[in-house]
Amino acid sequence: MRDDTNDLKEIVRGLGLKEKHHAERSIRRPSKADQARNRKPEKPKKKPENMKIIPIGGLDEIGKNMTVLEYQNQILIVDCGMTFPEDEMFGVDVVIPDLSYVVENAKRVKGLVITHGHEDHIGAVPFLLEKIKVPVYGTRLALGLIQHKLDERKLTGDLRPINAGDKIKIGKFTVEAVRTTHSIADSLCFLIETPAARIFHTGDFKIDYTPLDGDPIDFARLAEMGKKGVDLLLCDSTNVLRPGHTPSEQVVGKTLDGIFANARHRIIIATFSSNVDRVQKIIDLARKYGRQFTVSGRSMENVVTLAKELGYLRYPDTAFVELSQAKSVPDNKLVIITTGSQGEPMSALSRMADDIHKDVKLKKNDMVILSSTPVPGNEKTVSRVVNKLYEKDIQVIYNDIADIHVSGHACQEDLKLMHSLIKPKFFMPVHGEHRHLVRHKELAIELGMDPDNVFILKNGDQLTIDKRRAIEFQNVVPAEDVLVDGLGTEDVGGIVLKDRKVLSESGILIVSAAVDRTAMELVSGPEIVTRGFIYVKENGDLIDEAKAVTAEAITDCLDRGISDWNELKNRSRDALRKYVFEKTRRSPIIIPVFLDV
Amino acid sequence: MRDDTNDLKEIVRGLGLKEKHHAERSIRRPSKADQARNRKPEKPKKKPENMKIIPIGGLDEIGKNMTVLEYQNQILIVDCGMTFPEDEMFGVDVVIPDLSYVVENAKRVKGLVITHGHEDHIGAVPFLLEKIKVPVYGTRLALGLIQHKLDERKLTGDLRPINAGDKIKIGKFTVEAVRTTHSIADSLCFLIETPAARIFHTGDFKIDYTPLDGDPIDFARLAEMGKKGVDLLLCDSTNVLRPGHTPSEQVVGKTLDGIFANARHRIIIATFSSNVDRVQKIIDLARKYGRQFTVSGRSMENVVTLAKELGYLRYPDTAFVELSQAKSVPDNKLVIITTGSQGEPMSALSRMADDIHKDVKLKKNDMVILSSTPVPGNEKTVSRVVNKLYEKDIQVIYNDIADIHVSGHACQEDLKLMHSLIKPKFFMPVHGEHRHLVRHKELAIELGMDPDNVFILKNGDQLTIDKRRAIEFQNVVPAEDVLVDGLGTEDVGGIVLKDRKVLSESGILIVSAAVDRTAMELVSGPEIVTRGFIYVKENGDLIDEAKAVTAEAITDCLDRGISDWNELKNRSRDALRKYVFEKTRRSPIIIPVFLDV
Repeated sequence: MRDDTNDLKEIVRGLGLKEKHHAERSIRRPSKADQARNRKPEKPKKKPENMKIIPIGGLDEIGKNMTVLEYQNQILIVDCGMTFPEDEMFGVDVVIPDLSYVVENAKRVKGLVITHGHEDHIGAVPFLLEKIKVPVYGTRLALGLIQHKLDERKLTGDLRPINAGDKIKIGKFTVEAVRTTHSIADSLCFLIETPAARIFHTGDFKIDYTPLDGDPIDFARLAEMGKKGVDLLLCDSTNVLRPGHTPSEQVVGKTLDGIFANARHRIIIATFSSNVDRVQKIIDLARKYGRQFTVSGRSMENVVTLAKELGYLRYPDTAFVELSQAKSVPDNKLVIITTGSQGEPMSALSRMADDIHKDVKLKKNDMVILSSTPVPGNEKTVSRVVNKLYEKDIQVIYNDIADIHVSGHACQEDLKLMHSLIKPKFFMPVHGEHRHLVRHKELAIELGMDPDNVFILKNGDQLTIDKRRAIEFQNVVPAEDVLVDGLGTEDVGGIVLKDRKVLSESGILIVSAAVDRTAMELVSGPEIVTRGFIYVKENGDLIDEAKAVTAEAITDCLDRGISDWNELKNRSRDALRKYVFEKTRRSPIIIPVFLDV
Repeated sequence: MRDDTNDLKEIVRGLGLKEKHHAERSIRRPSKADQARNRKPEKPKKKPENMKIIPIGGLDEIGKNMTVLEYQNQILIVDCGMTFPEDEMFGVDVVIPDLSYVVENAKRVKGLVITHGHEDHIGAVPFLLEKIKVPVYGTRLALGLIQHKLDERKLTGDLRPINAGDKIKIGKFTVEAVRTTHSIADSLCFLIETPAARIFHTGDFKIDYTPLDGDPIDFARLAEMGKKGVDLLLCDSTNVLRPGHTPSEQVVGKTLDGIFANARHRIIIATFSSNVDRVQKIIDLARKYGRQFTVSGRSMENVVTLAKELGYLRYPDTAFVELSQAKSVPDNKLVIITTGSQGEPMSALSRMADDIHKDVKLKKNDMVILSSTPVPGNEKTVSRVVNKLYEKDIQVIYNDIADIHVSGHACQEDLKLMHSLIKPKFFMPVHGEHRHLVRHKELAIELGMDPDNVFILKNGDQLTIDKRRAIEFQNVVPAEDVLVDGLGTEDVGGIVLKDRKVLSESGILIVSAAVDRTAMELVSGPEIVTRGFIYVKENGDLIDEAKAVTAEAITDCLDRGISDWNELKNRSRDALRKYVFEKTRRSPIIIPVFLDV
């Protein structure tokens, strides 16, 4: 046992990595023997194998999941997702993981395996494939969704379909894809094997004994793996704060059946487009109750088309009607499946609620179903849409009123089942904010795990493991958020965002003047332009006075022989700031633009 | 019966009000008799009395509650609250009701009665008293909190304390204050009587049979009122979507007792400062378990000081220790009561979590309790703080983990009790978003109420009632949100906010140049300044090229003899916009500032 630790330590020293301070568990001071060995590094005896696990995204956050695995200088990536910007990330379109480590080590990257087709697992794939060539493995649905993203950006990729049950070699990694259940069809978890260690990555999952699309998780296979021995478990932590079990997707089906059975008018139902099984259920219910269906919203249209092509959705062509033709179908014979279940401002449902949808005009007696739960942060946008719908005297059914959504993630008792089947030696909770990771650690300990064998890492940290030991290192690779705004992926930095925040709070005031610094004369201006500060038309006096204040500051400087550009700018800015604050108690950004003439 | 309706109609016509279209219930076409009367309006027979109810705020929203009641040309106001700005209201400090109607009719306003001291019921009082003189009636706690607000703004007010059980005359209104239970001590509901109608306003309430501060709602008095006959009920709708009963505040007390009993180190507990009863319970528990307490956060300090002075909080001086002295108290002998239970970024708890609190440095083994539930919209700020705390290896107890908060508002079964006691003739749900008002109407109908007797109004609408009839009118007084930013209360308008939004998303690019339009020459510049667009230091080339593009556009115009200022500006703006978008896919605001020299 001791030797293993020493060998790992040696590797660590060789890499110049910083060991984590409080991870005393497997770390000892070097013994004299170690030191002796260090001094004479001649022919070292064959190093025992080890694997490295480097989370690039998905820790201390829900989103942008990406994990790097390394063995003998080869790299395998699991998932490459994006996340949506926080409120303070003004103007940012999406947030992706820092890809620099894998890009710099492109030659060593042997493959990217995808657990499932949600944005937080595939959203950054185009950004990766833009920079490096790497085969991407996933089920046909996940790959179809990736292909669509690549098409949009005119990129190509080497996409290789796999199926649950497949066992494939990717470089020196053996990857076994195991069927799992989640809120998107055809999700996988992975057993990743090398001679050094066997790692099980759950991806996102729930325990659904009766999923709509057929089989539950392959529990027997998981139990076999557990029996054979799994060295490290990486497990979804999203719902670890919720006690009990996550209900089956069947529950939603039953509720919807009851609602459809009693509906006498048009039904409009919003849900996540990626939840293909639920979309299938809605289509089945439409047919059961003699209705045709149509779809609205770009992502719903894309996914339905794709899923139909790939055979994930099954319905006769007569079941479907084009949205533009839907007006000809009687209300009580129509279901509109739409995006916008999170109240997204420009989504199809929001456009309907705001009366700006091209094809769908809502009317009294319509029934609108939001088959979803607001993602944290979206509560207000969802309420806004619900309120708008109520104002039209429409019957609205949403999560406060009926069981029309279930989560796609495992609750506490489900997680206990996963842990009990896999029985890992080491455990690293993933996919969760810090509080989720901590609670997941506690849950593992409650199940009898040694606290020293549970590792809560941060993005960019590294866990090095072999059959006997795991050691944690901090800040091994860069893993900050990368904010994407427009074309650039790296240039929306802190300063730009800070400026946007100040601009958003108080606006900007630009004062310009042309100065002849030879004659020491104010030649033209000052002119003042503002945006987001005050309504200029109603504040002409204030603007005039502000001009006068600035003019005075400038001429005062010039009279006193001050011609230094910065000095002139600073003095006018200070005078103007003082005046503006006194009059309005606001502090806009003030920018003097002086021209030398 | 018919006469009443006609009389009401007549008043309506006299006022030039627009009747609500779908409110057919009590509206008839004028009969020939009516028309005759209209033509010869000589000495009209004495009109039957009526009352008007005009909600200024609190409908289709949770917040800024304010209701105007009118009788015989006299006005009584119930509450005058504020609300916090929505995400899109960039830079806005607070949102208050439109006070213009009561300000314009200042002479007719006889009084303002306050149900309780929460911000959404008293927050706009200083803005009102700044403009009109009116006596303010409320319990001592509510008035104490108002006085504090007035002091901050160096205002004075005529504040008149009342107690539950008091029956007072305010002009021609008889107002009876009835004890109720809510999440702030000493809350009231009001029976407001005139010869025309008896109106019961619940204010905010919950049904707590065992409140911490003594007595429950005076159910007997409510039943008496109901028996005597209430014409109109205005009832809190905040929790109408929640089934069942709201638990008693005692539940929180018991949970906290269990937590305190087992705590071995320092306890830091965040809660709403206004929940004086809970603060008292925390102090009692501190004493029970041999701890002193201290407080952190401005509003907590203010409320504790005020509540102690007024006798709402009771403890011996030795129970308290100043925050600056708290370091000398052993950890297991100390409780810190703090603000920040909603994760507010600059609150005391957030400052502790961020290691920037002057007096409190968090350390391992500290226990932090968030005795609250995130208000919708605050989920993310609360998670942020919880995660930060977990990262310090602190034990965190929050609503996902234990019953450490109960709501202050009545759930469905509680509301049914209120309706059943008051048994009103007419009903207007208040204090809720539209979906809450609609659900509350449904609940009243389930209890047997005639749908035609339930009125869902909007802010600024008016309900005119007498003993027999109620009629609804739309848009009678202005009642839009008033956005307060800095000193101004009226000038943060739509244009300014729209600019702030664009600025926040893409920043601004200012291009300036001095042009001699006589010589048709570009004399100086163009210079370019940007904020919130790109990081200039890393994009020198782009800025240089942008200057060249603008210079070309200007000289091109001048060469072709174009000297019109707007034309010059537009052409340079267009050229620059095109260039910038091609290079960055971003669309900052572009402002040309040209000076004539």
